[in-house]
Amino acid sequence: MTDQRPIPGEIPSDATVPKVVVNRLSLYLRELQRLESAGQATISSGQLGALLGFSDAQVRKDLGFFGQFGYPGVGYRCDELIKAMRDILGTNQLWPVVMVGVGNLGQALLGYRGFVRQNFQIVAAFDADPAKVGQSYDGITVRAVEDLPAFVKEHAVRLGMIVVPADRAQEVADRLVAAGVDGIVNFAPVTLTLPPQIQVVAVDLAIELEQLSFAVTSRLQMAAGAEPSTASDESGPETAPPA
Amino acid sequence: MTDQRPIPGEIPSDATVPKVVVNRLSLYLRELQRLESAGQATISSGQLGALLGFSDAQVRKDLGFFGQFGYPGVGYRCDELIKAMRDILGTNQLWPVVMVGVGNLGQALLGYRGFVRQNFQIVAAFDADPAKVGQSYDGITVRAVEDLPAFVKEHAVRLGMIVVPADRAQEVADRLVAAGVDGIVNFAPVTLTLPPQIQVVAVDLAIELEQLSFAVTSRLQMAAGAEPSTASDESGPETAPPA
Repeated sequence: MTDQRPIPGEIPSDATVPKVVVNRLSLYLRELQRLESAGQATISSGQLGALLGFSDAQVRKDLGFFGQFGYPGVGYRCDELIKAMRDILGTNQLWPVVMVGVGNLGQALLGYRGFVRQNFQIVAAFDADPAKVGQSYDGITVRAVEDLPAFVKEHAVRLGMIVVPADRAQEVADRLVAAGVDGIVNFAPVTLTLPPQIQVVAVDLAIELEQLSFAVTSRLQMAAGAEPSTASDESGPETAPPA
Repeated sequence: MTDQRPIPGEIPSDATVPKVVVNRLSLYLRELQRLESAGQATISSGQLGALLGFSDAQVRKDLGFFGQFGYPGVGYRCDELIKAMRDILGTNQLWPVVMVGVGNLGQALLGYRGFVRQNFQIVAAFDADPAKVGQSYDGITVRAVEDLPAFVKEHAVRLGMIVVPADRAQEVADRLVAAGVDGIVNFAPVTLTLPPQIQVVAVDLAIELEQLSFAVTSRLQMAAGAEPSTASDESGPETAPPA
């Protein structure tokens, strides 16, 4: 606790903050963490925005959802803003995570160091394949999927990660919900049907490539003759087609 | 080619369309593909939005960036809209992709069927480890990273995927750029320095978990007493802090 300034009194609920803002918060946090480890103590909204391709107004507006940060003439203090953002995102505490499905992708995710850096720890992995059960990957021994409910309850795990094939994902999701998790990250390429109180984030790795093919395609078209123009973050045509 | 209506004459350039809109385009496309394979022929902007948690106005505004779609009283025809979106995203053509780094994550990505479904095909994989070179994963034989430039030139590959550890990523990016790719998907947790004409998309798998911890945290706070409220997609506080 500091007696200086920022630290929002109350973190706004999910319903009051657009998803895109929360997503940008993650990007700000990454950039701040990178700057801090490079020894930078303060940053302005303009500098932070420039590093990510956003305007300074966008940065201030996004942070404004969560409270007052920064000092006149100084900017933001990296360490304070990192702490505040982790408070907002809920990642100042360690989140234990269970993973279901230890195929190639699951094995890769078990070794992905980016999770622990942001305070997510995969504490157990489960698989339906008896040949996998008992094997260890990155220090995690695979358990039988039948043991999932007991483990989740005993360790009060709130997040689950689904890394099984599409046709098994719903069944695994049902198990995770029955076991008591609050949130699910779904790597399976299928839309899950879940109770409304369960939070879910779907990961589709092809979307990143699609964004890239759009950027490459449109850049080449631009180079081929179209006039470049700029657009503010959410401006758009005001006339709507009939559908 | 249809003589009916839609099909945008000219696809707007990257600079004119906000990134969040392009991202939503990918989400619309996924949903439409799912509906079409379930046998649904048409959909309204309201239905499409509802499936994804957006308003019908948002859907119409997003599509309005790219042209006129849909029919009064009918809505959108799924097949037409899918084709139009793939034209926009550049994925009506097959994109050959080279991958560098065949560790756990690389091996998982080689087997990820979601890429081919969206018309991305990993045509070659490269690794610096002589023990990996010559091994096959999902039908792809690993090549020596020294062979990357010749392969990219010979096969006119335009997209590269970096799946090496953070401390090797910049060096690999430089090689890809020198070899002539136009775009890079970076799975390494590090920011790359690239010439401005090279498009890059960074993948950070922990961001998905962070979005989930925010949703779970804020939902629990809401359940603990705060008043829920709704917000439109990009509304926000108008007063800006000083930084």
